[in-house]
Amino acid sequence: MLLRVRAAVAQLAAGLGAGPGAQPPAEGRGGGAGAGRGSPPPAAFCRPAFLQLTPEELRRADDHTGRAVQSPRDGRRRLPWSTGYAEVINAGKSQHNEDQACCEVVFVEQRPSPRGCLSSREGSRELDGGRKGFYFHYWALFDGHAGSGAAVMASERLHLHICEQLRELVEILQDPSPPPICLPHDTQSGSADTNQMSNAEGCGEVPSDAVPRFHLEKAVSHESLVIGAIENAFKHMDEQIERERASQHLPGGCCALAAIYLMGKFYVANAGDSRAIIIRNGEIIPMSREFTPETERQRLQFLALLRPELLGKEFTHLEFPRRIQPKELGKKMLYRDQNMNGWAYKKIEEDDLKFPLIFGEGKKARMMATIGVTRGLGDHDLKVFSSNIHIKPFLSCFPEVRVYDLTQYEHCPDDVLVLGTDGLWDVTNDEEVAGVVMEVLTSYEPNDPCRYTMVAQELVVRSRGVLKERGWRLANDKLGSGDDISVFVIPLGGPGNYT
Amino acid sequence: MLLRVRAAVAQLAAGLGAGPGAQPPAEGRGGGAGAGRGSPPPAAFCRPAFLQLTPEELRRADDHTGRAVQSPRDGRRRLPWSTGYAEVINAGKSQHNEDQACCEVVFVEQRPSPRGCLSSREGSRELDGGRKGFYFHYWALFDGHAGSGAAVMASERLHLHICEQLRELVEILQDPSPPPICLPHDTQSGSADTNQMSNAEGCGEVPSDAVPRFHLEKAVSHESLVIGAIENAFKHMDEQIERERASQHLPGGCCALAAIYLMGKFYVANAGDSRAIIIRNGEIIPMSREFTPETERQRLQFLALLRPELLGKEFTHLEFPRRIQPKELGKKMLYRDQNMNGWAYKKIEEDDLKFPLIFGEGKKARMMATIGVTRGLGDHDLKVFSSNIHIKPFLSCFPEVRVYDLTQYEHCPDDVLVLGTDGLWDVTNDEEVAGVVMEVLTSYEPNDPCRYTMVAQELVVRSRGVLKERGWRLANDKLGSGDDISVFVIPLGGPGNYT
Repeated sequence: MLLRVRAAVAQLAAGLGAGPGAQPPAEGRGGGAGAGRGSPPPAAFCRPAFLQLTPEELRRADDHTGRAVQSPRDGRRRLPWSTGYAEVINAGKSQHNEDQACCEVVFVEQRPSPRGCLSSREGSRELDGGRKGFYFHYWALFDGHAGSGAAVMASERLHLHICEQLRELVEILQDPSPPPICLPHDTQSGSADTNQMSNAEGCGEVPSDAVPRFHLEKAVSHESLVIGAIENAFKHMDEQIERERASQHLPGGCCALAAIYLMGKFYVANAGDSRAIIIRNGEIIPMSREFTPETERQRLQFLALLRPELLGKEFTHLEFPRRIQPKELGKKMLYRDQNMNGWAYKKIEEDDLKFPLIFGEGKKARMMATIGVTRGLGDHDLKVFSSNIHIKPFLSCFPEVRVYDLTQYEHCPDDVLVLGTDGLWDVTNDEEVAGVVMEVLTSYEPNDPCRYTMVAQELVVRSRGVLKERGWRLANDKLGSGDDISVFVIPLGGPGNYT
Repeated sequence: MLLRVRAAVAQLAAGLGAGPGAQPPAEGRGGGAGAGRGSPPPAAFCRPAFLQLTPEELRRADDHTGRAVQSPRDGRRRLPWSTGYAEVINAGKSQHNEDQACCEVVFVEQRPSPRGCLSSREGSRELDGGRKGFYFHYWALFDGHAGSGAAVMASERLHLHICEQLRELVEILQDPSPPPICLPHDTQSGSADTNQMSNAEGCGEVPSDAVPRFHLEKAVSHESLVIGAIENAFKHMDEQIERERASQHLPGGCCALAAIYLMGKFYVANAGDSRAIIIRNGEIIPMSREFTPETERQRLQFLALLRPELLGKEFTHLEFPRRIQPKELGKKMLYRDQNMNGWAYKKIEEDDLKFPLIFGEGKKARMMATIGVTRGLGDHDLKVFSSNIHIKPFLSCFPEVRVYDLTQYEHCPDDVLVLGTDGLWDVTNDEEVAGVVMEVLTSYEPNDPCRYTMVAQELVVRSRGVLKERGWRLANDKLGSGDDISVFVIPLGGPGNYT
């Protein structure tokens, strides 16, 4: 059974992603190869398709005691740009590895014009077979919780949702002139721009001079259209999980971290507590920030203040440094309201005895005593323990997207983008990761395509540690990460140099 | 009349600020010297008390055509630390200079214990006369709009509200141990800390072991207590303006930027579009950010989304790059929702024809087509033109407070903190300000106390420009600032060195 599902997943991920022009995301994750749509499959164990694991390798990857590090094998299909990847299962905190990963090259094909009113604008690239479009490179990590269903589906689908959003923009992104503010009636955006009206006239549209140009018109960049496309792709992904969570057995949720390389720029989109950094000439450039109850306190408190009914009379939107006892009524206690960054004393009232919306510190910080991340996909059924209070209204599926222009700097083979789930970052900080990257890369030839895999493996091994009598231990004898760990190491000297 | 009010204001500001222990902020800004409480005074023209302007000087300062630069005169009272200050009136955009400024040294006296249960903890400093407390230094700029009433009152009162908030914390801030999470019943926080219970027992309080200590208890720093005190002082200032706006004739509102030096640290609090930077060894360190419809777009859109009734059916929370025409219904237009940073296309619906909540770019960006700043004090009566839609729910009176630890670096006499209203920054950027600072300071001896005033004057003159046939022009012939301009230049080599 495991194998059948894995095969289906591999087929879907490989077939749809690298295939001839992405299709609109299909409903359902099964659809063939035994994972029939009628009978929801159980939450099955599967690993990224690109690992191409044999049944025996899959069993080893699922072994909590050995915690063998998994990487794409030599001699099998190499990842684009010779990207390095490594992963390891957790030390027993969940039955299976709930991280998932995806790496694809996706062709975005221009949507056909709906009325046969074909545009022939310059700048739209015709590719072999006359298809117009462009490619993007894609790497993503998904860190699941409360089951792996959401992470598996997101790893199979998110890039297709991004592709779908970008299809609207094929011509616009390939045209150096500013994107049009408005597109004509019922026409796909692919056939419209500032020149659109002359095209539109031929189709019986209103002529351009009928629409007055306003003096006050904001300029919007191509870059911000890509960011908007990625943001909306995350939203559509979340909605798909919501629609199919019952039929497709998708419990829980997942953090999502995706890097998209498109037209010379990296777009790093993060929703959750995974993390991305660039290491360039030894310098560390953060490419994401974590979204947790602590970092998003003010957004969460603001929502709770404006929509107190979401707290179900169990929680207060105020933050306190600890729980308050009923007998402390009337004393003064430190608190923080949504518009404060500092702390002040307030007299304790009846309402303050409720549980604080945000509570705890660092890795132990929780929202509504339930969840430690505040952005991600899924979690539509998550409720506060033994209550009817939903968590989802407080979670955001929207990523923060950071942009890195690869053309602004000449990169050498030792410059990399590292993506890691929190299993990596919980025990290894930015500087230590940069140290490992430099240390490992210098011991391989610059043109050795295996060197980035070696870095990824070393990062995973050093964060996992070694099994000793008192559990998994790092070199300094501190506890290693007992979490699932997944790492991509993407060379930035890549485009054109590494294939 | 002008003179009478000015004298009253000067007396209040000087008397209360530098006087023997701050009083709780009095109700009303008049109260004596002719500005009687019964008859609300008209919006009178006054300048900062520390300028000590004569009637003739005051008239010159109010002259829009000459735009003479004002600074504290040699031979009169010098500002603390030899701080430099300069200002100039606008070129005619409002009747009077709507900027205000304040510079004070304030003594924060410990509040007397309510039950005569005097604390005698070590660390609380006894000053002359047996009074316990500490001093803070204070500089602030207020940039008024729609009248100068709010700016005048804030310049007279904000430091007293800060003092009032800090009085609660006199002992706690002087004690190196972490601040107590909880204070006992009905006791002023000044007499309570981790040792509070033994004191409290003497007063018949519950003994300490009756309150269980929880494992999960967040540590709160002294610094964050000061931040909280400043934040709440801004809130109380705003509430005072609200209470007294009718009786004291306080139309309009103001941006507020305040720098507080306390126990080795600068706390720079900003609500609005004024700006503060530190120039240290030629390096620029931003100490504030501006709060405008553009920088606060997501907060404003989030509020509008959750509370659509605040938009009065006139506005949409979505952002569009320009107004939409009714005949464009059904077309696709670029938009941004509250959780997006990028742009995407949407089909125009009926609701999108409303005016966007945020509209325009840069200095022309407006919220609800009305106001270009989104934080500050006052504006309680401000409504959208010819409607009953209030702006205030969208404005925040809370500042962002940034902290700079003066003890972490050895400062030379050329290191300064510059505070300026937007009249400065609209035409002079950070690098240009730093250039002027360095250029002027090198032409004076390091121990010349006038040198910071010379810098402030030069910054104002260069931003105002020179009156030519085609208006006020900068050296590069671009338009100078037609706005009020006010600048403080505070030497960081100051504490102990400059008095």
